[in-house]
Amino acid sequence: MAASRPSSAPDWTASPLLTGGTTVRVRYEETDRAGVGYHANTFVWFECARTELLRELGFPYRELEESGWLLTVAAVSARYHRSVLYDEELAVECAILRAEGARLEIEYRIIGPDGSLRTTGSTTLGCLDPATGRPRRLPAPLVECLRSGSGPPAEEQ
Amino acid sequence: MAASRPSSAPDWTASPLLTGGTTVRVRYEETDRAGVGYHANTFVWFECARTELLRELGFPYRELEESGWLLTVAAVSARYHRSVLYDEELAVECAILRAEGARLEIEYRIIGPDGSLRTTGSTTLGCLDPATGRPRRLPAPLVECLRSGSGPPAEEQ
Amino acid sequence: MAASRPSSAPDWTASPLLTGGTTVRVRYEETDRAGVGYHANTFVWFECARTELLRELGFPYRELEESGWLLTVAAVSARYHRSVLYDEELAVECAILRAEGARLEIEYRIIGPDGSLRTTGSTTLGCLDPATGRPRRLPAPLVECLRSGSGPPAEEQ
Amino acid sequence: MAASRPSSAPDWTASPLLTGGTTVRVRYEETDRAGVGYHANTFVWFECARTELLRELGFPYRELEESGWLLTVAAVSARYHRSVLYDEELAVECAILRAEGARLEIEYRIIGPDGSLRTTGSTTLGCLDPATGRPRRLPAPLVECLRSGSGPPAEEQ
Repeated sequence: MAASRPSSAPDWTASPLLTGGTTVRVRYEETDRAGVGYHANTFVWFECARTELLRELGFPYRELEESGWLLTVAAVSARYHRSVLYDEELAVECAILRAEGARLEIEYRIIGPDGSLRTTGSTTLGCLDPATGRPRRLPAPLVECLRSGSGPPAEEQ
Repeated sequence: MAASRPSSAPDWTASPLLTGGTTVRVRYEETDRAGVGYHANTFVWFECARTELLRELGFPYRELEESGWLLTVAAVSARYHRSVLYDEELAVECAILRAEGARLEIEYRIIGPDGSLRTTGSTTLGCLDPATGRPRRLPAPLVECLRSGSGPPAEEQ
Repeated sequence: MAASRPSSAPDWTASPLLTGGTTVRVRYEETDRAGVGYHANTFVWFECARTELLRELGFPYRELEESGWLLTVAAVSARYHRSVLYDEELAVECAILRAEGARLEIEYRIIGPDGSLRTTGSTTLGCLDPATGRPRRLPAPLVECLRSGSGPPAEEQ
Repeated sequence: MAASRPSSAPDWTASPLLTGGTTVRVRYEETDRAGVGYHANTFVWFECARTELLRELGFPYRELEESGWLLTVAAVSARYHRSVLYDEELAVECAILRAEGARLEIEYRIIGPDGSLRTTGSTTLGCLDPATGRPRRLPAPLVECLRSGSGPPAEEQ
């Protein structure tokens, strides 16, 4: 994602291991009768962003899951600063703040085509072994990649 | 579902084996910026109706699936007569028209709280064995139940 | 909603003005390929709960909106304790913790049919005048109703 | 969209005025517990395709709507040939078959990354004046553009 960070975007709450993201266009289906993007869709867009970041790092989420690392959502939050509108192309930026044991902490911000900040948020993911339902440490190569910054350069540091 | 058939509702296109349905209330999330229910949600509501009909017949869909009968959607259609609105309580009626081999044909109509016809439609379901992905005949007790009308009385005949 | 509070449910974080809620059944469409309810749907279910609470209080949300009080979501959070499963009937309880100025703070907990706690969360709603887009104080009769507890009795106090 | 037509794709049922489309990647949220894309999402993807076609023609749907041409869905159908899977990048092709009066008929086919045909379908759109709710003839420049083929070349003729 080439979007430069607009001046209106807040800093991440901690120094990120890595950042990335994607763009999404707000679909008609994603709007509601108030004429704006329905708030719960934010978490779908957050997922699009972290999925693309993992893909760029060489760990497509589908492959992780099929290899026995299921990432489940343990907690989420979002703060809505300004509405998103139909057909707007949104930059969904994400920053992996922590990757320890079976846990991944990610922050997000959504920036509108006008550069204004629309939404910020966070997710905590817990890694499970789908065969047992038990927590499972994140794959070592992924953690190493995140820690060494050997993935795409972290734009925000 | 106790709703009597309003005069505006069309007849089913064939004599149904059995009818039933449920009610759904249009959620905020299901509206779009045109101020009405987004059209694709119709198929979610159709599924609610057939799920409740199967439950009433004593064949909860979850149990069918967990016993090795996966019903997959082979074809759908819908015709939108009038919009559905936020917070309206809709009667979603369904009629099983045919149950043969691995195939189930169902028709639907959605009636608004004012008795007006909103949507009509149909689905064709194909039954699969999830273990093999191959077509599998519908469970014999279900077919028998549909044919004998030993389920809830078919209101429409 | 008649569900008594299961012992596993945590207390609200503050003494609620009023509590209420509804039940929802997890739809097939709401599941994902991990076999559980997709996490973002939680916020749709939270909205179902607060909508029913407002309806019971005599302030159907549709009427509020059409009378010029648009409730927009300012912030949300959720914590996922255990997965919700297809076809489960969930009790979605909500508690209005604060109603001041243009702001409504609500907490939620989702309880499974086995009485176990599945999800907790919160939303902060801001009231706008849809004509101007400016904040607007909550309707006085609604605030009075919440403060006096003249609505349905708060079960949790 | 650069995808060449795979040999498995059926012909359109009539000679199209114009063709186009887009690609979508199947989101986790769009899968269901059967492990495949939930069938109703097909109509969201169809809408993505026609939206991009209109944009390429110089008639972004958002502008049409804001200028007083609301396209409402009058009828839809789909036939599911093979499942779509999580994270697959799908080519969603569409062909405008007819544009007359207030009516637009469009056909679709969804092709998987392996070139196999997944879904075919159709929508009939009716154009309304949102101010009156009455049918309104499609914008003359759009009809002219469709008829003259002055848009992007129709690949399929």
